[in-house]
Amino acid sequence: MQDTVDLNADMGESFGPWKMGDDAALLDVISSANIACGFHAGDADVMSTTMARAVANEVGIGAHPGFRDLQGFGRRRMDVPHATLANQVRYQVGAAQGMARAVGGAVRHLKLHGALANMASEDETLARACYEAALSVDPEIIVMVLAGTAQEAAARSLGARMACEIFADRAYNADCTLVDRRQPGAVIHDPDHAAARILDMLRAGAILAEDGTRIPTRIDTICLHGDTPEAVGIARSLRAGLEAAGVRIARFEGARG
Amino acid sequence: MQDTVDLNADMGESFGPWKMGDDAALLDVISSANIACGFHAGDADVMSTTMARAVANEVGIGAHPGFRDLQGFGRRRMDVPHATLANQVRYQVGAAQGMARAVGGAVRHLKLHGALANMASEDETLARACYEAALSVDPEIIVMVLAGTAQEAAARSLGARMACEIFADRAYNADCTLVDRRQPGAVIHDPDHAAARILDMLRAGAILAEDGTRIPTRIDTICLHGDTPEAVGIARSLRAGLEAAGVRIARFEGARG
Amino acid sequence: MQDTVDLNADMGESFGPWKMGDDAALLDVISSANIACGFHAGDADVMSTTMARAVANEVGIGAHPGFRDLQGFGRRRMDVPHATLANQVRYQVGAAQGMARAVGGAVRHLKLHGALANMASEDETLARACYEAALSVDPEIIVMVLAGTAQEAAARSLGARMACEIFADRAYNADCTLVDRRQPGAVIHDPDHAAARILDMLRAGAILAEDGTRIPTRIDTICLHGDTPEAVGIARSLRAGLEAAGVRIARFEGARG
Amino acid sequence: MQDTVDLNADMGESFGPWKMGDDAALLDVISSANIACGFHAGDADVMSTTMARAVANEVGIGAHPGFRDLQGFGRRRMDVPHATLANQVRYQVGAAQGMARAVGGAVRHLKLHGALANMASEDETLARACYEAALSVDPEIIVMVLAGTAQEAAARSLGARMACEIFADRAYNADCTLVDRRQPGAVIHDPDHAAARILDMLRAGAILAEDGTRIPTRIDTICLHGDTPEAVGIARSLRAGLEAAGVRIARFEGARG
Repeated sequence: MQDTVDLNADMGESFGPWKMGDDAALLDVISSANIACGFHAGDADVMSTTMARAVANEVGIGAHPGFRDLQGFGRRRMDVPHATLANQVRYQVGAAQGMARAVGGAVRHLKLHGALANMASEDETLARACYEAALSVDPEIIVMVLAGTAQEAAARSLGARMACEIFADRAYNADCTLVDRRQPGAVIHDPDHAAARILDMLRAGAILAEDGTRIPTRIDTICLHGDTPEAVGIARSLRAGLEAAGVRIARFEGARG
Repeated sequence: MQDTVDLNADMGESFGPWKMGDDAALLDVISSANIACGFHAGDADVMSTTMARAVANEVGIGAHPGFRDLQGFGRRRMDVPHATLANQVRYQVGAAQGMARAVGGAVRHLKLHGALANMASEDETLARACYEAALSVDPEIIVMVLAGTAQEAAARSLGARMACEIFADRAYNADCTLVDRRQPGAVIHDPDHAAARILDMLRAGAILAEDGTRIPTRIDTICLHGDTPEAVGIARSLRAGLEAAGVRIARFEGARG
Repeated sequence: MQDTVDLNADMGESFGPWKMGDDAALLDVISSANIACGFHAGDADVMSTTMARAVANEVGIGAHPGFRDLQGFGRRRMDVPHATLANQVRYQVGAAQGMARAVGGAVRHLKLHGALANMASEDETLARACYEAALSVDPEIIVMVLAGTAQEAAARSLGARMACEIFADRAYNADCTLVDRRQPGAVIHDPDHAAARILDMLRAGAILAEDGTRIPTRIDTICLHGDTPEAVGIARSLRAGLEAAGVRIARFEGARG
Repeated sequence: MQDTVDLNADMGESFGPWKMGDDAALLDVISSANIACGFHAGDADVMSTTMARAVANEVGIGAHPGFRDLQGFGRRRMDVPHATLANQVRYQVGAAQGMARAVGGAVRHLKLHGALANMASEDETLARACYEAALSVDPEIIVMVLAGTAQEAAARSLGARMACEIFADRAYNADCTLVDRRQPGAVIHDPDHAAARILDMLRAGAILAEDGTRIPTRIDTICLHGDTPEAVGIARSLRAGLEAAGVRIARFEGARG
């Protein structure tokens, strides 16, 4: 069985006077942080504070660009030309690099946020536009992709360094999409169950769909959430469960696809 | 007499569907471009286009950060804590670097915009906060300062690479401030007059104030404007006048203060 | 033949330091102005100036709400929940009313802008959500709709006061959609041709599609453009052509559908 | 002794996905709500929800305009021309009116927010510009002013309906300014103390400064805070204390100054 895996979570999603998430707690659990870049959440102060903490915790810093839609938190699909999306990714990656450098860190990976990520998981051309844009700023940036989606296909076709991601708390369909949240069992709330399931997948080297289908994949990182106190508890338990089973938590290497 | 000088101008100040200035024309005249970074003007598309043109014209790229105030074009003073200003400068410089890299260029210098520049020319502590922030992203960045102001003092005290700037079209007071626009002769509209005056200053190695006072200074770059068709004409004439007098137009070296 | 018709145009689309369109010229030609409300274009200063001019020219004031997307000028489709769209329409209509009242005017009509208008012309449910929202602020507001689209159906189903609009400069398909701009003849540049065509439609009481199909409709207002000097010229010529044929230009009455 | 007084608090300060304050709890305590209008906080969804709750609780609705500075929450002073400020007040008041009408309510009063309020309490000309702007939208709007400041002077000079406000939890200097927060006793945390102090002031018909000075004033409303769970508790206790002493909590009448 694979003996190391990365844990990642979104953070730096406060804005101005408004707080979101318990970043400090999560940074004790994860090995890679996806940090908002000011378009859908985050501002320069929040980025600086969050990145300084990530550096102090030896957590890998990722740029987490999203749509330019603060009120909608980047969760609303927008019909933006690919050339504009590419420039917006470049801008956000560059801003993140500048902020990281100023606190003694560096941007190591890229993960798309919200509706932009959803669109990229369905549309390889759009995903390629975003990833090429990030690579045009830093050819060594590691692209974090949802395993089994158009995101992964795009990163592979570009020969990019990549990290394949699965969800700790969501059930999968046989085609690698997520089971609709409204279905029973779609969301896993029990950390022991989540840990057991992740261990099964790491052993199998595959996503295990709800119907038993086995979808072979690299599993480089596991997505955690920290938007509720409960979520932070689950994240902690999951990490403990993995470590108890002999899995070491460490940053992904970013092997090319 | 000093035989080379740089010409700089602000550009990349369009936003979304709105156009401003004739950047293409100005890029044939200047050797350094101060490019808006999206807070007071500019967006990722505008930055990309403007920087690609600057690269093609072998014009030096500068980050031109301003207050986060699009409606006011960064011209309204804001009482922002220095720590926040510093982060906003880091963010904008980083974004500019990312955009520049993606088009095969690099950010070479920094110039503050609008009300932020005005405040920095009066307040050395504020100027230091902004310049230190830029240097924390790139220790080799060249800080463009208004000669004889708190900006210059701040850059010198930091030991930063710098470029001292004078205005082609504004009369100076004996204390190195600009003559109030409402005074007769405060703004110079005649390009021949402007060129003759700049040549006098280059020969003198000093700013020549309206009352005859001679304020010795490095003159590394001359500020031009391109916001009207007339302004572009003046810029062209000024360049021609300088070249006719044997002054070569070239990027500043950025010697430390 | 119908002996009066309204002419409308979008305006107030400047923002901060950026200018767009020749509103002053257009206000001499039109009888109703669709004024941007600050989400996709316009700001409080621009609204105030534009509305004061409309009042002085006895031009009817319309609120012209769009998506909250300044950089995209409201032209990018966004997947916004209808409840949020409704609130955004209420907000923009209310803001327009406040600005109008302060200059001695009043908001008389509503027209949706850009991508929001395009979506409303295809999706009656979305159109209803927007129009109900406007009516919840002012039950007497006149809803300007694209004749023959889901916009018209929505306004009729609400029993709203309405104004049916056709385009002066675009050819129609038999299903009342516009001929694709890439087709020859899709856009009409000759003002004489445009005037003759509009007169034919007013006589017919119908949209006359390119293939000869006659689509009976109320024609309350004709959409003009003012985004280029050429466009203002066309608008002037069209008005002159209509008046020469005995058609009086006057604000629509807003009869219920 | 005066037997009724109003209690007011700021609310509707959430934005997009970010929550702030416990508006639902505060609405059970206060009689007038100052609702953010989207420039420094709040959005159309937040305004709609907040206003609907205010209507349900029979709490008076106030427009609470601030600087166009979301990241700074309107707390950073900005040097905005008075004509622009006036337009921004008109815009925000109009938007609030539209939102209120749509939920069956109406905007009854105006209170300036944050740095704009601070500037208006020092600068009568600026205060007048803002209040005249609000009155140009609704001549019957009640202007809530900080008792004893330039705000009050401006409202009086305009003959506006007004409501004079004092702070429940802040000590006063003899010149009616607030004692600096860094001084001991400047902020009152004990609700019993706050209630006793307010009762003394209501009996005296005056602000009682820390040094014993008695500054006669109308006391129409008392400012409460709800930004922390503790603050809501204090607000509740203060109301109970006032009611126990026979003071009825009711909306101000808005007599002219």
